[in-house]
Amino acid sequence: MTTPQHRFLIIADGEFGPLTSKTANSCIRYFPERIVAVLDRKQAGKTVQDVLGFGGKIPVVGDFERGIAQGKGATAVLIGIAPLGGRLPDEWKAWLRTAIEQKLEIWSGLHTFVGDDPELGPLAKARGVRILDARRPPPNLPIADGRAADVDALVVLAVGSDCNVGKMTAQLQLRDALVKRGHRTSFVATGQTGIFIEGWGIAVDAVVADFIAGAAEQLVLQGAKDNDIVLVEGQGSLIHPGYSGVTLGLLHGSCPDALILCHQATRDYIGDYHGREPWVKIPSYVEMIEIYESAAQPVHPTKVIGICLNTYDMDESAAREAVAKAAEETGLPATDPVRFDSDVLVDAIIGARATI
Amino acid sequence: MTTPQHRFLIIADGEFGPLTSKTANSCIRYFPERIVAVLDRKQAGKTVQDVLGFGGKIPVVGDFERGIAQGKGATAVLIGIAPLGGRLPDEWKAWLRTAIEQKLEIWSGLHTFVGDDPELGPLAKARGVRILDARRPPPNLPIADGRAADVDALVVLAVGSDCNVGKMTAQLQLRDALVKRGHRTSFVATGQTGIFIEGWGIAVDAVVADFIAGAAEQLVLQGAKDNDIVLVEGQGSLIHPGYSGVTLGLLHGSCPDALILCHQATRDYIGDYHGREPWVKIPSYVEMIEIYESAAQPVHPTKVIGICLNTYDMDESAAREAVAKAAEETGLPATDPVRFDSDVLVDAIIGARATI
Repeated sequence: MTTPQHRFLIIADGEFGPLTSKTANSCIRYFPERIVAVLDRKQAGKTVQDVLGFGGKIPVVGDFERGIAQGKGATAVLIGIAPLGGRLPDEWKAWLRTAIEQKLEIWSGLHTFVGDDPELGPLAKARGVRILDARRPPPNLPIADGRAADVDALVVLAVGSDCNVGKMTAQLQLRDALVKRGHRTSFVATGQTGIFIEGWGIAVDAVVADFIAGAAEQLVLQGAKDNDIVLVEGQGSLIHPGYSGVTLGLLHGSCPDALILCHQATRDYIGDYHGREPWVKIPSYVEMIEIYESAAQPVHPTKVIGICLNTYDMDESAAREAVAKAAEETGLPATDPVRFDSDVLVDAIIGARATI
Repeated sequence: MTTPQHRFLIIADGEFGPLTSKTANSCIRYFPERIVAVLDRKQAGKTVQDVLGFGGKIPVVGDFERGIAQGKGATAVLIGIAPLGGRLPDEWKAWLRTAIEQKLEIWSGLHTFVGDDPELGPLAKARGVRILDARRPPPNLPIADGRAADVDALVVLAVGSDCNVGKMTAQLQLRDALVKRGHRTSFVATGQTGIFIEGWGIAVDAVVADFIAGAAEQLVLQGAKDNDIVLVEGQGSLIHPGYSGVTLGLLHGSCPDALILCHQATRDYIGDYHGREPWVKIPSYVEMIEIYESAAQPVHPTKVIGICLNTYDMDESAAREAVAKAAEETGLPATDPVRFDSDVLVDAIIGARATI
């Protein structure tokens, strides 16, 4: 899978926002210069900066055809929101048909593969247009066999209190900082957005359940080639009622030497269940650390070596307080690596690398 | 899915044995009168009783054509072993082709769907022969939403120290005993063998990883209809390096009110990893209980209410000792429900039912 230098129109219709459009937001953070517009009929007329607090003057548009004509014109459409369950809303099909007819690639991370759509798939084939379904698993995945424990590189897995707290972003920031300091470091993408950014990886939440850990193992072996440090993107949370199985498979399959615990400082409950009364309360840092270390222990013991906070929705002094509180409660280095310096975590990873 | 009264030839080639042919053995235990023969070239000439210690005079044969001609003749071929990874060995295809040409149904629980085989699928269609791929997931599974916690029935999940320790058998025995005592009780099949036996269910290890818990939830809702007690078949183990994700998804999705911990009394290490040096040591009963109760706690707190032992490979007095030891170490009722009386566990379940 390569990452050609496309210019994207991002579809985030009705859901573009700091917490609701994770895929869109990450792509905007990592390659803003390649986004021509975001489609969201609810917020048309604003800029991405208005909506997210970053991203600059990229326009939010309410009309698909106008969207793909922005700037130098889009060369690909990227589906930037992941509805609960990941299925392709019917009304988007007309947009995607238009895009394919205009020879734009389709990049999707949905569970429903756009390429398998009985209309869009054949249409794309007939027009010679690529549909990139980032969640389509590779064939012949293995059952995990513990080989990830044997790599020479230090393997660091990001784990979280919940989905969508910044696990991928944290690892990408840390990768950049480690590379800057001269360490051969890979980022291993385990979800569709990471695959969009890096150009390779496996969406572990989309593999057949028996092969979650096997997929993680295969990714670590690939990421360890010619690298001294492997940063594995985390998925879900061990306390998430819907996705915990993915998280545990990833933890056991990747056999990490160290964990980074990620949390959004203002979040008290698992976010996907606000439709019901708030359901799963996020426990203290100390308890979350205990949950992850205990779950890993029988298979491959590991330790949390630092805390990554997401403080995007706090003012500066509240954010600094949250970081100080996390460090004090856990005795571990803590920071928000997007907002503040990531040095304390980088030092912790380099320190862990020195001891294996 | 219905369970027609087929007569089966079971394929267990090279792997027929007490521990290696789980699907075959369970089918033999639950409907021996419908098995005409077992195909295993290594043990041809023996009886099933010789190999398993139960199953009577069912012959083990070394020739496929002879196998399907046994007794009144087979009407279906059942694939009775699950190779690591679940893939269809190439050499079996000739047998299956022969079977389809003779209008025998194919029942399979492999991850590789026999019906998707480019040769066997079309051949079966052309001959009007059904291929039952028990692991094929139903379409449109939900993301788990906690609805399993809302059913009025008592939900009891079997959990284990490892794969293949008797979780399904335990629940089937308990179901029969509870029904005999007049309790409306369902057995919810979560794996291919249970589906073969019951005629319905979902193989949760074969669904897309994001939907493990959702599949479990859907099964509990279905099992709770017109029943007061729902016994959910367990899968894998929270300490199994390859399959732990399936186990946690099932635990969180089914929202059980009570757990039954299953263990093979002589097993010290997770069984699938004997190719390497023994890897994951099975901890004490008390620790296993702690692992399951802690993992469930943030989503839906629950308690282990009894211990089910598999003592098939011990003599009578050692088995009684093992049961007594499990009861003493945990303070919980314990038995081997296949070998001994299941009353202590049935009483525990009825007691739990009375308190919800």
